[in-house]
Amino acid sequence: MKSIIIASTSTIHGSGYLEYLLDELKIHFKSANEILFIPYARPGGISHDDYTEIASKAFKTIGKTIKGLHEFENTQEAIQNAQGIFVGGGNTFVLVSQLYKNNILLAIQNAINKGTPYLGTSAGSNICGLTMHTTNDMPIMYPPSFKTLGLVPFNINPHYLDPIEGSTHMGETRETRIKEFHAFNTQPVIGLREGSWISVEANKLTLKGPLNARIFEYGKAPYEIETNSNLDFLK
Amino acid sequence: MKSIIIASTSTIHGSGYLEYLLDELKIHFKSANEILFIPYARPGGISHDDYTEIASKAFKTIGKTIKGLHEFENTQEAIQNAQGIFVGGGNTFVLVSQLYKNNILLAIQNAINKGTPYLGTSAGSNICGLTMHTTNDMPIMYPPSFKTLGLVPFNINPHYLDPIEGSTHMGETRETRIKEFHAFNTQPVIGLREGSWISVEANKLTLKGPLNARIFEYGKAPYEIETNSNLDFLK
Repeated sequence: MKSIIIASTSTIHGSGYLEYLLDELKIHFKSANEILFIPYARPGGISHDDYTEIASKAFKTIGKTIKGLHEFENTQEAIQNAQGIFVGGGNTFVLVSQLYKNNILLAIQNAINKGTPYLGTSAGSNICGLTMHTTNDMPIMYPPSFKTLGLVPFNINPHYLDPIEGSTHMGETRETRIKEFHAFNTQPVIGLREGSWISVEANKLTLKGPLNARIFEYGKAPYEIETNSNLDFLK
Repeated sequence: MKSIIIASTSTIHGSGYLEYLLDELKIHFKSANEILFIPYARPGGISHDDYTEIASKAFKTIGKTIKGLHEFENTQEAIQNAQGIFVGGGNTFVLVSQLYKNNILLAIQNAINKGTPYLGTSAGSNICGLTMHTTNDMPIMYPPSFKTLGLVPFNINPHYLDPIEGSTHMGETRETRIKEFHAFNTQPVIGLREGSWISVEANKLTLKGPLNARIFEYGKAPYEIETNSNLDFLK
């Protein structure tokens, strides 16, 4: 019975780290006192210790202890025994490279499938999709594969950004990029705006948060879905 | 005696395809009647024929014929015999995947080293750097390597974008992304704003166009350099 939160971002503008999600996280991690944090995405190249400290501070406010995966000798065992798992954002290429290097993708899948509650934000959400082909990140590291956890039957585009009105910049809009993805790939993509998340409970997928999301299906015009919509149709 | 133009973009806002560069291209390709176009980056998933047609129209205005590499049976020979080479923009992951698949990176390097004039725009400029680790593109295809032509001893970041004042979006700025690149890599990066290009003549590297560029060197604060500056110091 999977229990997953796939969040667009850790932080919304003008608010603290994870602050907008804390009420939800209290419920999501209700059976966990200690949560295993995977700091591999290293935003801005930050150290594992420093990143774990940031996560610790946020979770302390809801009475949870955080332990970084880098503190364990046996990472497989740490994942298997975790009461809850949180994979934070940063760079998806760095994160996925480290997950493969440490050979822990299967261990994470197994833990989630047996019911360990999981939280992903940004890069930690990208890896919940079938592949990381729709990340926004710069490819600063070369991972052995773009295949990710496949916890949901589509790809995630976190920090989804609408075209900026009146922009004179000639770089591609996000929508153009995802359309290009569909020139070479067929799985659906969900553009999650900052403040949105997907809740997976058992096998029920729901869009949460105050905003709509944008759905990109192969061969269809992109369209909006409202918050609290069931996403099972994308299966 | 290399002769290369590495342009940030094919098109500046409010102007036609390659229009801002045509006077420069007349000189750059003065010895070429027919130019070999490599359409592999396929912007928006466009076909090789359609993309070649766009390039043809622009070059026709300065009296040059374009032939697409996909029209040749023997691509190695086509590159070897080319009077000039143009690699257009689109998706760098798609472009680099195709260059490896068709095994033509070495042929392009050899042609350029023996003096065949080369023009790259956007993705076609990214591949002039040491690696494609600093592309802005979405990783919609998985290339066998991120290593590129290494025609200049640094990496390119085309369509360089300054932070947008007052933005509430929590995604990384371009500068943050390049700083993250330097957490894991040491080569310099040049942020080329739209309208800028690097001219390589023999072994002299010069910044051209109306704008400054932003230089990111490992372990240093980023800084601006003025147009017409010599870039040989980055060697």
